[in-house]
Amino acid sequence: MNTFKRNIFKKNIMHVGEMASGAKLTVPVYSYEPMCSSAPNVYIQANMHGAEVQGNAVIFQLLELLSDCDIQANITLVPYANPVACNHKNGEYTLGRFDPITGVNWNRMYHFDEAVIAPFAQQNIDATEEEIKANFQQLLLDQIEQKLEHNIWGITTGQRIAYQLQQMAHQADLVLDLHTGPISSKHLYCPEYTKASANYFDIPHTIFIPNGFDGAMDEAMFCPWWSLQQAYKELGRSFVMGEGAFAKESFTVELGSQEQIDLAVAEEDAKSILAYLQYKGVITTNNEQDFKPQEMTRYACYLKDYKALYSPMGGMVDYLAEFGKPLPAGEPLARILRMDNYVSDSSGDGDSLHNISLDRCVIPILHFASASVNQGTELYKVFQDYFEL
Amino acid sequence: MNTFKRNIFKKNIMHVGEMASGAKLTVPVYSYEPMCSSAPNVYIQANMHGAEVQGNAVIFQLLELLSDCDIQANITLVPYANPVACNHKNGEYTLGRFDPITGVNWNRMYHFDEAVIAPFAQQNIDATEEEIKANFQQLLLDQIEQKLEHNIWGITTGQRIAYQLQQMAHQADLVLDLHTGPISSKHLYCPEYTKASANYFDIPHTIFIPNGFDGAMDEAMFCPWWSLQQAYKELGRSFVMGEGAFAKESFTVELGSQEQIDLAVAEEDAKSILAYLQYKGVITTNNEQDFKPQEMTRYACYLKDYKALYSPMGGMVDYLAEFGKPLPAGEPLARILRMDNYVSDSSGDGDSLHNISLDRCVIPILHFASASVNQGTELYKVFQDYFEL
Amino acid sequence: MNTFKRNIFKKNIMHVGEMASGAKLTVPVYSYEPMCSSAPNVYIQANMHGAEVQGNAVIFQLLELLSDCDIQANITLVPYANPVACNHKNGEYTLGRFDPITGVNWNRMYHFDEAVIAPFAQQNIDATEEEIKANFQQLLLDQIEQKLEHNIWGITTGQRIAYQLQQMAHQADLVLDLHTGPISSKHLYCPEYTKASANYFDIPHTIFIPNGFDGAMDEAMFCPWWSLQQAYKELGRSFVMGEGAFAKESFTVELGSQEQIDLAVAEEDAKSILAYLQYKGVITTNNEQDFKPQEMTRYACYLKDYKALYSPMGGMVDYLAEFGKPLPAGEPLARILRMDNYVSDSSGDGDSLHNISLDRCVIPILHFASASVNQGTELYKVFQDYFEL
Amino acid sequence: MNTFKRNIFKKNIMHVGEMASGAKLTVPVYSYEPMCSSAPNVYIQANMHGAEVQGNAVIFQLLELLSDCDIQANITLVPYANPVACNHKNGEYTLGRFDPITGVNWNRMYHFDEAVIAPFAQQNIDATEEEIKANFQQLLLDQIEQKLEHNIWGITTGQRIAYQLQQMAHQADLVLDLHTGPISSKHLYCPEYTKASANYFDIPHTIFIPNGFDGAMDEAMFCPWWSLQQAYKELGRSFVMGEGAFAKESFTVELGSQEQIDLAVAEEDAKSILAYLQYKGVITTNNEQDFKPQEMTRYACYLKDYKALYSPMGGMVDYLAEFGKPLPAGEPLARILRMDNYVSDSSGDGDSLHNISLDRCVIPILHFASASVNQGTELYKVFQDYFEL
Repeated sequence: MNTFKRNIFKKNIMHVGEMASGAKLTVPVYSYEPMCSSAPNVYIQANMHGAEVQGNAVIFQLLELLSDCDIQANITLVPYANPVACNHKNGEYTLGRFDPITGVNWNRMYHFDEAVIAPFAQQNIDATEEEIKANFQQLLLDQIEQKLEHNIWGITTGQRIAYQLQQMAHQADLVLDLHTGPISSKHLYCPEYTKASANYFDIPHTIFIPNGFDGAMDEAMFCPWWSLQQAYKELGRSFVMGEGAFAKESFTVELGSQEQIDLAVAEEDAKSILAYLQYKGVITTNNEQDFKPQEMTRYACYLKDYKALYSPMGGMVDYLAEFGKPLPAGEPLARILRMDNYVSDSSGDGDSLHNISLDRCVIPILHFASASVNQGTELYKVFQDYFEL
Repeated sequence: MNTFKRNIFKKNIMHVGEMASGAKLTVPVYSYEPMCSSAPNVYIQANMHGAEVQGNAVIFQLLELLSDCDIQANITLVPYANPVACNHKNGEYTLGRFDPITGVNWNRMYHFDEAVIAPFAQQNIDATEEEIKANFQQLLLDQIEQKLEHNIWGITTGQRIAYQLQQMAHQADLVLDLHTGPISSKHLYCPEYTKASANYFDIPHTIFIPNGFDGAMDEAMFCPWWSLQQAYKELGRSFVMGEGAFAKESFTVELGSQEQIDLAVAEEDAKSILAYLQYKGVITTNNEQDFKPQEMTRYACYLKDYKALYSPMGGMVDYLAEFGKPLPAGEPLARILRMDNYVSDSSGDGDSLHNISLDRCVIPILHFASASVNQGTELYKVFQDYFEL
Repeated sequence: MNTFKRNIFKKNIMHVGEMASGAKLTVPVYSYEPMCSSAPNVYIQANMHGAEVQGNAVIFQLLELLSDCDIQANITLVPYANPVACNHKNGEYTLGRFDPITGVNWNRMYHFDEAVIAPFAQQNIDATEEEIKANFQQLLLDQIEQKLEHNIWGITTGQRIAYQLQQMAHQADLVLDLHTGPISSKHLYCPEYTKASANYFDIPHTIFIPNGFDGAMDEAMFCPWWSLQQAYKELGRSFVMGEGAFAKESFTVELGSQEQIDLAVAEEDAKSILAYLQYKGVITTNNEQDFKPQEMTRYACYLKDYKALYSPMGGMVDYLAEFGKPLPAGEPLARILRMDNYVSDSSGDGDSLHNISLDRCVIPILHFASASVNQGTELYKVFQDYFEL
Repeated sequence: MNTFKRNIFKKNIMHVGEMASGAKLTVPVYSYEPMCSSAPNVYIQANMHGAEVQGNAVIFQLLELLSDCDIQANITLVPYANPVACNHKNGEYTLGRFDPITGVNWNRMYHFDEAVIAPFAQQNIDATEEEIKANFQQLLLDQIEQKLEHNIWGITTGQRIAYQLQQMAHQADLVLDLHTGPISSKHLYCPEYTKASANYFDIPHTIFIPNGFDGAMDEAMFCPWWSLQQAYKELGRSFVMGEGAFAKESFTVELGSQEQIDLAVAEEDAKSILAYLQYKGVITTNNEQDFKPQEMTRYACYLKDYKALYSPMGGMVDYLAEFGKPLPAGEPLARILRMDNYVSDSSGDGDSLHNISLDRCVIPILHFASASVNQGTELYKVFQDYFEL
């Protein structure tokens, strides 16, 4: 891969905290700024959850592939976004989803204060679209700055990391947060207002999410703009979300299973992202490079229909259902073994094997990472009431 | 302690889940029903968070003391309320505050569905106060029943535990949830509408909480009734919260520090609770027993003024501030040692010792359990804008 | 599978400890005793390490298959051997290999006191072989009894579990301890003196272990007898290890990867074990059942040549080498990604991808469970100086 | 404390490993070399176990106090010796005693290869004492170098840290490894051959340890020299351990309880260490400084009599026994609460409170860190058959 590179990405080291020993928490940031930018700016980060490492490999491949592209906008790439989670082992596995001290999900710590929206719309009721875009972005940045720098009570470890990432992301128009499921197919969280974009990723399953804020990066990016557009609407001024000043898109891209690095798969994922970026004009076709989405059946459902199935019993699970394929009602998702219920007698093996099935057709998307589950552990996540894109 | 007992508490074992091996999760339930009940019913639980064990000892002492009391109402006592958290060690300490799989705080899993309130008020607009009490309680119980028993998607491990506790608690009028802080003074969470009750506990610090639901047991108990009273108000019918059908009180009692059992202190805490119960008529004075609250200065603040201070740096902490005593502005709460910054030269010891102070007078209530903190770890919780009760 | 069963296994529940809440730790024990026993007795356990669950499924399949066999000896089967480890989650995964409080490997807690050997041999120098077998077995059982029941200082949580399992195992002649690797091929730990037996398992990789005791179940079974045979040798009386009174065999069977239950694979593994038991005369061929080992290339090496490779650097690992296939010197076992070293310039991608290889031909057997490794994490285990059986 | 300093300690940063993200593991090293050294060289480290932080504060105070001392030998001080353990939180507490991936105790990873001793003695049978000291120290250093730098299979994360610390420590004559107990009195591990030194520390309890190597720092320091002296003895050449070339002393200093920093107590501990160093001639009295051990009753026992008491039951513990004071036979060490056994009836409170006592007089030294124990958890450590120094 050590070929001549046309586009040189600049590397910075961002300080995002410090540990008890004083060890600095740092995040590497790669960025490219073209001479003139004529397309939406891009921000892509990976590995906010500790065990979800494949996004780092995707950023590696993006850097390799982008070196030969015709780039039309600023691009910022951030692997290892969460240096606490990334290095936190407990047993052999990486403890990943939440702050080990507080239990708070690392991807629920971004900032959005609904209260600033209505006043801003009122104060900028007659502003041009360009002014709105610039002023509102500045407001979002000022709020983060305020939290980070002018706060006698301080902020949590996770907020300090999240806010600094958010500062960079607010300066982009297209934001991708690279995650993975536990053991999982590829799937995409996409805002409802920008459904068309889901067709440009090589990802066969999309969840369309509404416009509520629950602390995640993707929501922190588009919810303020959505709320602003609503506020203008109430004041009688109409904008189309996803266009003009409001041409903001953000996605959580679930790349497959956690605890895995696969550089070959990562190259395919990078090309999928580049197909989306080419569609958005961020890169333009040249002789050597032309990124197009693959032909595939793409299923989708609304967030309310993306259901978690919690295990009805404790036991050890033989996961049976194939990801991404509609599973008829009554067909088993899994078999649960309960050796403590084994009875050896003339009538059989007691109550030691249980099929888990649903009364409706679903598409299994992911399942739990371990074979051992308690009663109430999240066993599967599935699409119900799905449809083709 | 093996003396003759007048009042015999019945013991039941409640099943609240099962583990991967099939091991049953059980909770012991002690209950007493007097011949005729003329006072508010009582529900007290302990140890929902794994490391917060002192409440179990308090329930032990309550059982001992109550055996000789004149009891006027049903009393239910539940130690070891959370058998997952209670037995969950990681290293030497008990991992306590959240589900180790999901990170969700065990005390944020109770149920309340705001959506049922308005329809109930409308349908029961002309009901008597007694009917309202009975019907609404039944509605709350039915909702839990529905979640527990008629739900194809299942519920989480923590919800299964919480809902079963909540079923019992909904049948009481006075609910105490016994917790502790990390390293902590005694303090009490008390709903704003029932401030007077705070004077009957031997607890020098009270936080008055508003009527919003955030998933905790105390909130799950009074918020539905508060919301109902508000709904009636909007329909033009007026009730006083804390009286009549709405004579519901619930408290989170923080007994001091976690990871400690002290039976002598537990006896004092039990007497404090009995003083409150005597004030409420649940027990009546007899020749041998008369429980009165102690004379003491009781400080309080509103929840919005109960502030967490997050560490401005990583390091190792020498906690200095005494709990429960107003600390003047500028006085150090703690000193943070940073040996990595030590410089041995003619000008001193470098940047290795940092005083942490605030620009206002506060009462320190609790501090973090460990001497090692990251930047952003919750260092202290303090009262600001406090007042005497 | 609910067919008529000829052989009924008895089920007992063994108490092996209790948790802080008082919850009992229990282990299910399945046993079969034929009318007359003419073959070596068998003991098989599974899941001593929490995440190594596949052995439970193998015991399920053994119970199913054995119900129709002609059984010639006592057989004891113990799934869920370690109820602490089995239910211990930390994050999504099962924390498995060691006591979470002390860090001691659960499979290093069995008992063997070398000091009793020489005195026993001297006292029983003229005993018959049958007497030796009976008396020495009794001595081993007495020692465990002493530790469990007559010990004012107590024993650890893990010892209490291990000793009770060991009590049962000492009464058998053939002992199988079912484990798994992290992400792993199937492999077998076999004592050097009983190499021939390795050919009867459908397991392509065998490690021949010497006669030293390091605390594991398999060692706790054969080391005392090996030491006894040596002690007799020094006293001038000669026995052959593996024959007569010394016909003791014990194996650690590594069934593949942890955190997985697969009932179909478990059936194959059960048949592999039955082939070994049929070879030993424990079951005899009948019309329906004839268990024979499969034809396959079986590789082996000595324990000293079963090498762990510790990661020379921190990073994220793309594991490349196929298990069970000789890997030529210089071929990469893995690639390690280090995005923090990525440099985008005309000369390439910096120091961000590292191939890990060895200077000799090896057979990769297993690798680490996570993609994230620190410098010094055990990356792979491999056979060097291997040979065909 | 920012006063003029006569002695300036040099600070170096030692690299001891790297994490998955590439983050460097570093340890700060403070060292002082006098113009001419006429006394034994000193090495002191702290915080090898993550939660045992008080030693860092002691090193802070040593640096402060030593700046005004007359120093006669090289002194090396290493706080934060284990940057993995030091920063490893799980829940609120610092996970401290073992590698979270492997479970191996961080203080069992030092190196000593007995096999090199006899050949060295034979090859240096006629060497002068000075040559022996220099050559043997070089041999120990070469061995470490070999492990660290010339090893195709690599070493573990903990070995890499331990060996680098050991490299520095081998160059000293007096080595102190600063630890703490869980909840603990101050106590000292002292080699049997150097009993007199125990009187110079302000520590009331000493455990005399034999000369076997079990992987700890203190053992790694004196065992090689002890073995060498024994080897010479067998060859007919006699040295006194603790004198001349063999004037090596090493101690594990247990400073009290873990998870605490107290700078005031640390100053007392620092003075206690300086009293020992003054006794050894490392510092000499001057006008301002004269460090003498305090008068106190010092108890001691042999390692075989330093007994762990494992909990005979699961439950919640009210620790009663005072540290450091002989506890008569039959007096309770602790009371264990078992609410699940509570029975409320005419005969009492059931089997809910258990006194834990011993049949002999002991001195309690430390107890477990948590109130919750399983059956088999180490409850107390005590001196039996103790004596006054």
